[in-house]
Amino acid sequence: MDLKPITLTTDFGHTDPFVGIMKGVIFGINPHANVIDLSHGIPAQDLLAGALVLRYAAPAFPSGTIHIAVVDPGVGSERRPLLIESEGAFFIGPDNGVLSLALEGKTVSRITHLANESYHLKPISATFHGRDIFAPVAAYLSLGIAPGDFGDSVNDFTRLAWPKVTEAAGALAGKVIYIDGFGNLITNIRERDLSPFDPQGLAISVAGVTVRGIASHYRSGGERVCTAIINSWGLLEIFSFKGNAQLLCGAQIGDAVSVRQTGTGEQAP
Amino acid sequence: MDLKPITLTTDFGHTDPFVGIMKGVIFGINPHANVIDLSHGIPAQDLLAGALVLRYAAPAFPSGTIHIAVVDPGVGSERRPLLIESEGAFFIGPDNGVLSLALEGKTVSRITHLANESYHLKPISATFHGRDIFAPVAAYLSLGIAPGDFGDSVNDFTRLAWPKVTEAAGALAGKVIYIDGFGNLITNIRERDLSPFDPQGLAISVAGVTVRGIASHYRSGGERVCTAIINSWGLLEIFSFKGNAQLLCGAQIGDAVSVRQTGTGEQAP
Amino acid sequence: MDLKPITLTTDFGHTDPFVGIMKGVIFGINPHANVIDLSHGIPAQDLLAGALVLRYAAPAFPSGTIHIAVVDPGVGSERRPLLIESEGAFFIGPDNGVLSLALEGKTVSRITHLANESYHLKPISATFHGRDIFAPVAAYLSLGIAPGDFGDSVNDFTRLAWPKVTEAAGALAGKVIYIDGFGNLITNIRERDLSPFDPQGLAISVAGVTVRGIASHYRSGGERVCTAIINSWGLLEIFSFKGNAQLLCGAQIGDAVSVRQTGTGEQAP
Repeated sequence: MDLKPITLTTDFGHTDPFVGIMKGVIFGINPHANVIDLSHGIPAQDLLAGALVLRYAAPAFPSGTIHIAVVDPGVGSERRPLLIESEGAFFIGPDNGVLSLALEGKTVSRITHLANESYHLKPISATFHGRDIFAPVAAYLSLGIAPGDFGDSVNDFTRLAWPKVTEAAGALAGKVIYIDGFGNLITNIRERDLSPFDPQGLAISVAGVTVRGIASHYRSGGERVCTAIINSWGLLEIFSFKGNAQLLCGAQIGDAVSVRQTGTGEQAP
Repeated sequence: MDLKPITLTTDFGHTDPFVGIMKGVIFGINPHANVIDLSHGIPAQDLLAGALVLRYAAPAFPSGTIHIAVVDPGVGSERRPLLIESEGAFFIGPDNGVLSLALEGKTVSRITHLANESYHLKPISATFHGRDIFAPVAAYLSLGIAPGDFGDSVNDFTRLAWPKVTEAAGALAGKVIYIDGFGNLITNIRERDLSPFDPQGLAISVAGVTVRGIASHYRSGGERVCTAIINSWGLLEIFSFKGNAQLLCGAQIGDAVSVRQTGTGEQAP
Repeated sequence: MDLKPITLTTDFGHTDPFVGIMKGVIFGINPHANVIDLSHGIPAQDLLAGALVLRYAAPAFPSGTIHIAVVDPGVGSERRPLLIESEGAFFIGPDNGVLSLALEGKTVSRITHLANESYHLKPISATFHGRDIFAPVAAYLSLGIAPGDFGDSVNDFTRLAWPKVTEAAGALAGKVIYIDGFGNLITNIRERDLSPFDPQGLAISVAGVTVRGIASHYRSGGERVCTAIINSWGLLEIFSFKGNAQLLCGAQIGDAVSVRQTGTGEQAP
């Protein structure tokens, strides 16, 4: 087996043959490939969800890993297929932002426009570059083909903006950026954004619900209420122990989240 | 690792232990097996969906690949378990048609009735031949056991009919044969069926909606309308850019699709 | 590739990056790991479903296999992370019962409390011990680290009770313990519990429906009716051929199931 894993993140779901087809192409080129499914459940065409999954999964993988992300509503149009190298990892996908959050704050050493058709399947389709470009390029890369052979270097790539947290009058204003399968509301507020605050005196409001303080683990939250925690990605998260905070609060992605300091005994509104 | 991948296509879903059990049986027999999930999301007992997934995924895999398909409502009855060899690939599953579309137009070199119980688990169950017959036979095959050792050759296997496209008065009549997870309506009309037509003058009707011409890529279709394209399988497909053609048209598998030539300036009814 | 597979059973679903993160951690420690998905579709926090999936999948795997199960509502609290060795297999997960049904009736040779932080990721999170403890310990174990290095031995672990079948006046009283993706109602009544009965004279009642006898295979049941069978796990199961017994009967997990002997010609009430 090749020691460099090739990971797959797509919005292809688990019924259709699209994922299987990509795997077939990869094994046809490199029979020793180590292909790993990260997620095929990205909501259709949801670039932000795909970018967040890749952002949080990719850093767990060893140096040399090749990550393919295919959330690609513009397939076949002028958007460029790219290979981006950063700090020992390789990212392959369309230039629509799906790769970009994984690269935020990282050093990018080379961006290659995958224009060399020698490494594409032929005839190339208008609708499935995962099969025709991204899978074969990843497989050839795992065989040791040099990145520069896949096309010319370019200088930029499309970046999704990480939603910024703003601060005014001692309060933070953020938002819900992701809701996981447990219904946990994940915000864009990082642990370090909270460092000026006293954790136990915090009042956190989202979707009309206000919670107090930061729990140390899920079980310390009550059932059928919402509670805040710093999650495994270092982000402020609202959860409901053994329940589903999304259903309990009626919250949605994009909902505003505010964080204010209150006195320990003060009543949160 | 064995270089011959073993692929799995089932209607077992992603909750129950059935897929895991099959993998355990395979690794118990061949610890170096390379087992690849194609799809476990085939709708329960939907032979046509399973057959189509296998048809389009299998050709992407290298020579020597062993494909197991388990969509098997008749498990335990008199339907035969088969191993079919065709052009360097191996297909293992029940003789109910689920293997057949992948073999359409291919040379079949041998059909083996998997009757040799030496390669089955014992005692064999009435309800799970994926575990008791198909997984162990695939694993032994990957170890180099000769196909003829698994049972006697037979002469035929059950074929699902590929739904035929008919032509009358210059118009084609086909149908929707598959709807993918994006809601794209995939028809049985192949690119070559359209060769007598001028692509830009085509009027394509399905579920009460008529679309004009063939788009070159998804992005060239408007949002909230249906558009036609030749998809990555070489089939005529109706899609809605960034949307869901199935929901937009209310179309279902089996719906009639008609293709007619119109003048470029003619109004499609 | 390491010959000892590492299996994953979780309630993480197929959208979020949690499964991918665990795989990344494992490959980062052991690039030759053989990681196998058993199920990530366990209903959120459903310990019994997770325990049953592991119970029925684990025995299919070869000796030396390392099974990780993460259904862990109490993550970060005082519940202990454990490694349990039993008859050549290794089970890693939280001490909440999710591992226990796989160990029922087996010899347990050692229970290790995974307290040695040298083998954990740092800083450890409060919410994701799958990433921070279970994945790295499994990876180091697959590299040959001795179980005793991960922490001290302990004497007990939390067991889920296998729901008992009771007998009174010649009738058995059991319950539905699992409903699979086909809607099959799987009971806690084992084939051997039925040995005192004449199979053809049995009357089996669940959710207001009474079925007669035990079918030899699914196809011998009628469509749109419920029928009983001994399934591939050796348990009494109620199914509907080509249909969904759960929908047909309106049955739920926990529903009572009774089995009585009747005369062959007797009318079941």
